[in-house]
This record gives sequence, C-alpha cells and structure tokens, in this order.
Amino acid sequence: MTNKTPAYPPYYLGIDGGGSKCKVVLTDAAFTVLAEGLGGPANPLRGMDVATQSILDATYQALAKASLPASAISEVIVGAGLAGVNIPEYHQRFSQWQHPFAQLHLTSDLHVACMGAHQGRDGAVIICGTGSCGLASVNSQVLEVGGHGFPYGDSGSGAWFGLQLLQRVLRSKDGLLAPTLMTDLLQQLLGLRDSLAIASHFMHATATEYARLAPLVFAAAEQQDAQAQQIIVEGAEHINAIAERLLALSPPAITLIGGLAPKLVPYLDGNIQKLLVPAIESPELGAIWFARSAATQNINHADTLITEVL
Amino acid sequence: MTNKTPAYPPYYLGIDGGGSKCKVVLTDAAFTVLAEGLGGPANPLRGMDVATQSILDATYQALAKASLPASAISEVIVGAGLAGVNIPEYHQRFSQWQHPFAQLHLTSDLHVACMGAHQGRDGAVIICGTGSCGLASVNSQVLEVGGHGFPYGDSGSGAWFGLQLLQRVLRSKDGLLAPTLMTDLLQQLLGLRDSLAIASHFMHATATEYARLAPLVFAAAEQQDAQAQQIIVEGAEHINAIAERLLALSPPAITLIGGLAPKLVPYLDGNIQKLLVPAIESPELGAIWFARSAATQNINHADTLITEVL
Repeated sequence: MTNKTPAYPPYYLGIDGGGSKCKVVLTDAAFTVLAEGLGGPANPLRGMDVATQSILDATYQALAKASLPASAISEVIVGAGLAGVNIPEYHQRFSQWQHPFAQLHLTSDLHVACMGAHQGRDGAVIICGTGSCGLASVNSQVLEVGGHGFPYGDSGSGAWFGLQLLQRVLRSKDGLLAPTLMTDLLQQLLGLRDSLAIASHFMHATATEYARLAPLVFAAAEQQDAQAQQIIVEGAEHINAIAERLLALSPPAITLIGGLAPKLVPYLDGNIQKLLVPAIESPELGAIWFARSAATQNINHADTLITEVL
Repeated sequence: MTNKTPAYPPYYLGIDGGGSKCKVVLTDAAFTVLAEGLGGPANPLRGMDVATQSILDATYQALAKASLPASAISEVIVGAGLAGVNIPEYHQRFSQWQHPFAQLHLTSDLHVACMGAHQGRDGAVIICGTGSCGLASVNSQVLEVGGHGFPYGDSGSGAWFGLQLLQRVLRSKDGLLAPTLMTDLLQQLLGLRDSLAIASHFMHATATEYARLAPLVFAAAEQQDAQAQQIIVEGAEHINAIAERLLALSPPAITLIGGLAPKLVPYLDGNIQKLLVPAIESPELGAIWFARSAATQNINHADTLITEVL
C-alpha cells in the first residue's frame, strides 16, 4: 500500500438526495465521470441514520464501480443536494455529522437541480412533480420559493391537483357541485363508487398517493370537463406565481422539471414561456458543480439561501 | 336476586359517540333521565375494541349512577349516534358486535344531533366545528352531505379555515401573495418566524391542530385584513352550499352547531338565516329519540341514510 497524501483530494461526488432514493455520481479531479451509485432515502426527515446510511451505501457503490478502495472515501469532496436540509434543525444535524469525506458541502435538492439544469451557470428551476417549488441562482444569490410540504404548501403540484380532484368529486357526489367527469374517472381508478368508501381510502393518504390522481384532472380537461379545466387554470396560476417571484433575480433561463411540467407549460405567462429551456444535466451532476464551486470558495452555499425575502 | 323477564326492556340509552369521547344518557321507559355517563372515543375509526369499550364504560357508569345493577344492561334499548358508522365497513363491524344490550340501533352522530336539536321532529343540522357536514331528516327521509374527513372533505370547517390560513401565510412569506396580518398572528401563536420551522411544525398535524388556527382568520378579518375576509367568504360559501342542498328535503328548521357557527351566521344566505333555530336538546338526548323511534318501527335508521343523492 502506498501512503499517499494528495495536495487536493482527487475525487468529487455529487448527491441528489430525495425522499425515496439518493443518486450519486463520482468524478475525478478533472470532473470526468467515473461511476454512479444509488441508495435509499437521503431526506433527513426520514431519520438521520437512514439518510447518512443511504449516502454511504451509494458512495461505496460508486467507489467500487470505479475500482477504487473504500478508503478513498476520505479523498472525496462531496456536494450534497438533500430534500429537507434547508429546515434549520436538519441542516444543523447534517452539519454535525462525523462524515468520512474530505469535505461535505450541503444544499437543497432544488439547488443542485438548478445547477445541473444550467451546467452551474445562473438560472432558475421550477419543480412541478409530487411537490412544487422554485429556485433561482444568480450572481451567487439564491432565492427559493414554494415547497414547504403538503397540504399547506406545494400549491400547483401533483399532490395539490389530486386533492382538488378528490374534494370536487366528493362535493359533486353530495350534490354540492355540478356533476364532473372526474367522478367517473376516479371511481374507475379506485374501483369504488361510494363516497364514504372513497373518503376512507384516502384517510391516511400521502402526497404521493394524491399525486397519482393528477393525470385524471388532465384527462377530464381534455374531454372538456369544466371543473377539471378550472383546477388546471388555478394550478397553473400557482406555478406562474412561483415563476414571477423568481424573476426578482432576473434569471436568464428557467427549467421546468417534474411530471406535470409538460402539461402546465401552455398555461404559463408568455414572458415565462420565453425563458424556458430544457435541463442540460442531471441534479447529481449539478451537485458536482456545487461541490466545485463550494470547494473553491470554501463556503457552504446552504447558508446563502434566501428563503424569507418579502 | 329476582329473575324478572320484562315484557319490554325498561331502559333507554342514548349515545353521542365522537372521535375524542362518547357521552351517554340513561332514561327509564317513560324517557325520564336517570343518569349520564362519559367514555373514551367511540369512533370505530380508532379501532372497534376502543369504541366498544368506551361505550360499555360509559354505560356501566350511567347504570351505577342510577343505582342499577350492571346486569340491567341486558334491559337497555340503545340508540347510538357514532361518528364514522356510516362508513360501510364500520357499520358492518358494529352490526356484528355481540353487544350485551336488549337492542342496539345505529346511526351517525350527525343524525342524533339533528334529532336532539329538533326534539325528534323534522329538521336539519349543520356542523361547523373541527369538521363540517349537514343532515336533514324529514318524513323519515334522511339526507347527509359534506363531512368525509380532512383535508379532502370538511370544506368550510375549522380545519379547513386553519389550512387556508397556513397556505396563505406560507405563500405570503415567499412573496407569492401580499402581506397579511395572519402572518403576525400565526407567528405569535407558534412562537416561530421561519417558514421552514412553521411548515415542519405542521408536518403531521391533525384536523384538530389546523382547527386551532381558525380563530386567527376571524381575528385578522375583524382588523380588515383582506385575505382573511376572502377566506371567510369562501368558507361561508361552503356552509351555504351544504344548507342549500339540505333544502331539497324542505326541513322546517335548521340548527347550526359547532365553534364556528356564530361567526358564520352573518355570511349565510337570507333564506337560510330565516330557518335558523337554536338546538333544543343535546345529541345524546337525540339518540334517545332515535332509539324510541327505531324500537317502535323496529328498523335500523342507518340503513335509510341517503348519502349519494345526485
């Protein structure tokens, strides 16, 4: 064994850590991709033990794929974009983690998605998936809006669309709203007809389960269902509001990410549509850009997040 | 010990069973109140064992207070208004309960509230408490609307008001909506300022916890906060819609029950306001009316509930 002590750690690891899985990518010092890895949930809301173990699993996987020894983990500079890490309590816990890396730089999953989408350059991203949120990163200023969790936040998200559908179907079946095609579509999907049975089905439903109903709203709207169309207009207004807010930093480009993105584009304001570009790179490669930048500036970008600009 | 076998069981028991407690009242065959009793949750959603034990606890309590032996339970005709019992699965489980009573007649807590409010006569009730729902009972026809649970049902309820407030405060703090006085009120109540801290506070919040925020909406509206006033107008529209739906059965009177009722009355339509009367008797006494009626007709009123009239 050689006992080398490099002047600079020779590896970079980018992490995109969400609520269901974490994806990592390992590069050399020249940012050439060596290997990828996949682990379990890395969202600290699921527990710090689970999150750190998921990250380590994925990292050792990537090191092994790159034919590197496990001990090389101490030579890795990590950029980690983790869902939930902008909650002060979890940011603090992660900061206190006795990690085995050379450096660990933390930020949100949204921030690394933005850096990936625009290859580390200035820009903005808006997520319209199960949740909804947006982030602009311009001149080292970062503005993050929306998100916050379902059902109080994430307006215009898939979970939000599903909840609107369910509310309207139950009201319609009670005779409180006009009939809607969404009732038939929901009943078919669930194989349930009775309001009480439908309601009990969703008694402890998660955001993900509500989000599964979102496509029914678009299916009904395509068949000219007025109530479904109303939901889409209202949901798009929420995404528009996020986009308009991000314009405060004048991002040169905006990327829409997530399952609902293609459906909502036609409903966005013209000035927003003009700025839309597809994502160039993945969030985990964005995390590499973040690690590069943070290692150079020796700062933790998470501390620069502006989350309460009024 | 005497070994009496009465021609008709000589006691009636009315049960108002909700999610947090069940109240019972015991009367003799002439419907004179003998005693009351209080037990734990009797909502089958909390588990059948808990629900049946709560009912038995409260019943034995009432028998003891009335100086009757525990064995008298077999001479009691029970009218039980239970939250959740109109969900087919739970109705079936309760129907299969090997209960110790002479007779057990099941219906919803809303139905017995209506019978109590109008002393067993035709009428309607609307609940605006933590949840929201309405029921009209006219000529043995019963129509029940709303409810279904939070957040997909219970529009215009306390939990609904709390959620609207939280949604707007988070959006306002993100710069997606204009500033609102509700932000200051919420921050004071929670002792939290940061959006992420506020959002995490509600991460697993129950309907009851959301409902605790409802008074803040009315406090802000009284100080002319435009957004709080918008929430109240929208919430009142939901309660109005329930009331208008109940008019299908032409109830001669409507009683509004629950913490938000006094606040919402001024916002209801004039034709609804004209029908409003205060409740005459309690839900548990309503359950006695229900037991009388069911024992006479030898039917189970729960089966006559019209829950899916379109």
